[in-house]
Amino acid sequence: MQIKELGELALIKRLAEQFAASHPRVIKGIGDDASVTIQDESTYLLCTTDTLVEDIHFSLKYTPSYNLGRKAVSISLSDIAAMGGTPTFLLASIILPVSTTTDFVNLLYKGIKERAEEFDVKLIGGNTSSSPDKIIISTTMLGEVSKDRVVLREGASVGDNIYVTGRLGDSALGMKILNKIQESEVRPRMHLSGVGSQKPEKKKGNEIITAPFLKDAVTAHIDPCPRVREGRKIAEKKLATAMIDVSDGLISDLRHIAEQSAVGAKVWVEKIPISTGLKRWILDHPQDIMLALNGGEDYELLFTASNKDVPKLETVSRELDIAITHIGEIVPKRNGINVLNKKGEVLNLTIEGFEHFKERQE
Amino acid sequence: MQIKELGELALIKRLAEQFAASHPRVIKGIGDDASVTIQDESTYLLCTTDTLVEDIHFSLKYTPSYNLGRKAVSISLSDIAAMGGTPTFLLASIILPVSTTTDFVNLLYKGIKERAEEFDVKLIGGNTSSSPDKIIISTTMLGEVSKDRVVLREGASVGDNIYVTGRLGDSALGMKILNKIQESEVRPRMHLSGVGSQKPEKKKGNEIITAPFLKDAVTAHIDPCPRVREGRKIAEKKLATAMIDVSDGLISDLRHIAEQSAVGAKVWVEKIPISTGLKRWILDHPQDIMLALNGGEDYELLFTASNKDVPKLETVSRELDIAITHIGEIVPKRNGINVLNKKGEVLNLTIEGFEHFKERQE
Repeated sequence: MQIKELGELALIKRLAEQFAASHPRVIKGIGDDASVTIQDESTYLLCTTDTLVEDIHFSLKYTPSYNLGRKAVSISLSDIAAMGGTPTFLLASIILPVSTTTDFVNLLYKGIKERAEEFDVKLIGGNTSSSPDKIIISTTMLGEVSKDRVVLREGASVGDNIYVTGRLGDSALGMKILNKIQESEVRPRMHLSGVGSQKPEKKKGNEIITAPFLKDAVTAHIDPCPRVREGRKIAEKKLATAMIDVSDGLISDLRHIAEQSAVGAKVWVEKIPISTGLKRWILDHPQDIMLALNGGEDYELLFTASNKDVPKLETVSRELDIAITHIGEIVPKRNGINVLNKKGEVLNLTIEGFEHFKERQE
Repeated sequence: MQIKELGELALIKRLAEQFAASHPRVIKGIGDDASVTIQDESTYLLCTTDTLVEDIHFSLKYTPSYNLGRKAVSISLSDIAAMGGTPTFLLASIILPVSTTTDFVNLLYKGIKERAEEFDVKLIGGNTSSSPDKIIISTTMLGEVSKDRVVLREGASVGDNIYVTGRLGDSALGMKILNKIQESEVRPRMHLSGVGSQKPEKKKGNEIITAPFLKDAVTAHIDPCPRVREGRKIAEKKLATAMIDVSDGLISDLRHIAEQSAVGAKVWVEKIPISTGLKRWILDHPQDIMLALNGGEDYELLFTASNKDVPKLETVSRELDIAITHIGEIVPKRNGINVLNKKGEVLNLTIEGFEHFKERQE
């Protein structure tokens, strides 16, 4: 059997099962956004590691090195945010082909440095090495959280409301647009081959993006903003019973909460917050509502909270100037995970959230 | 300019300079075996991250997946050992082509698990992802050390003795032998092509290794033993003024200590501890004494200590049943780093320690 038949979730589960040995200092090992271990009487240490591989997690065709650096830090910040924690220190392994230019490396570092500094995070280690071909960036983020404030994936109860910060689907739309730009840059040349000396008109990156809402979607993809302030505030006020960041896609990440909490969930599709841009896009591409359900890389926070805390959540939303939208409810495990339309009918979700190792549809 | 002209050291230095912003909780950032940050009143937190890339750091041609898992853990353990610390928790990112078999993955995990358990380390996190082609393993190891016991690279003083644990050069010899086996497996077929139906005699992996000492060298390469007990004992007894693990090669790593401590060093080549096997090998291949100087991946501890502590070091050596060899002395910075022969003549070291990004000689 090859691992493409097994899928990433099964692989992580297997890893978790093998290492499930308990230890008095381990509060949460594999299976959450970050590990949680006891640091001292009042504080938990959080640790998360992520690896970005060229042509799997990013494409240099449309990711400037500066943004690549920023994004590598952002995704790890997002994991700490999902625990309700405060990020503290960063280590970065950077693996580059020897043909990489120093300009590229400088801008990559600049991106890492600036994003880290925006969140008061210090780079304290890492290493560099040569790569046979692809660029690989591995980040390790440390963070801290008060013992009585940490939020795991496993605390959701039947009856809890399901919330999400910000808007979903813009990042996936942005990637779609960026891929379309690539195609449009290549295609004219192919069409025109054999037409003699006539040079194809090459459209440069951003020129094709005329509508401002498409620019916003592209920004959401190449420069996502981790919800660190939001996660910390939600944890400080003890509002979330379970929390995760939306990296794989809403449904996929909701499934993580449901599995860890041994519950089911229902989500109302028309309640899912999407940007004006994505709304406009959907007018011409109705099937792309799926981008909000399964697109992934939103780096918003998905969490569950008790109904009694609605007023407090409204206050947080106002104070931090961010949408916090009630999109569904936690139900008994036997009911499974369902997305309902306006009429209360269950939608058939054929495409699952992006899952590594399963062969792509494309 | 491409980074191959810059070299890894310059790249790390640049990174370190850019991030040299001080922080009250950062004792040591980039530029040591592990980062050192304040955990509580009496304890420092150690953190190190390493990334192994197929065909750069290992070859599947001669690294069984079980050993690959063990080695990925060992190199991070070795970094914690070099700080005098106790390793605690491990996170592992595993990036695999979708064509990888589950057998391979199972053995890889088995290797990670068993090596970690040998050192009382718990795997608490990580992630898995697909790779476009190469296998990539990224490990993050956490550890702890008492504030008054931590050993940095920067404490060496003029007059200190230079010591190394165990023997050097076996790992590099092992890699050389493994590469020779590969060649011998390929060559006969090439020589015999066109000889009709006569089938080449294919020698299998270990069969070519007849002398036991060559087997030891191969083991040193594919299953190095991190000196965790040794590092901790040396730190507990406050014997080392500076310490590093020998990963890049003796001279290269000695240079790290010298640079961080602002000193020079002299090493007596005939004092460098090498195995009986390497001694025998050198009879036929005299130039391969360089393997002990520049081979790298020994994962022994290189440290400096005051002359007054000779008796205590002898006790440690006896108690832990490991050779601790006096190989040189710290000298003023202006004298540089020199390797001397029996007559006291300075050897000309043309080949430097293995440094990533500089194009290989091969």
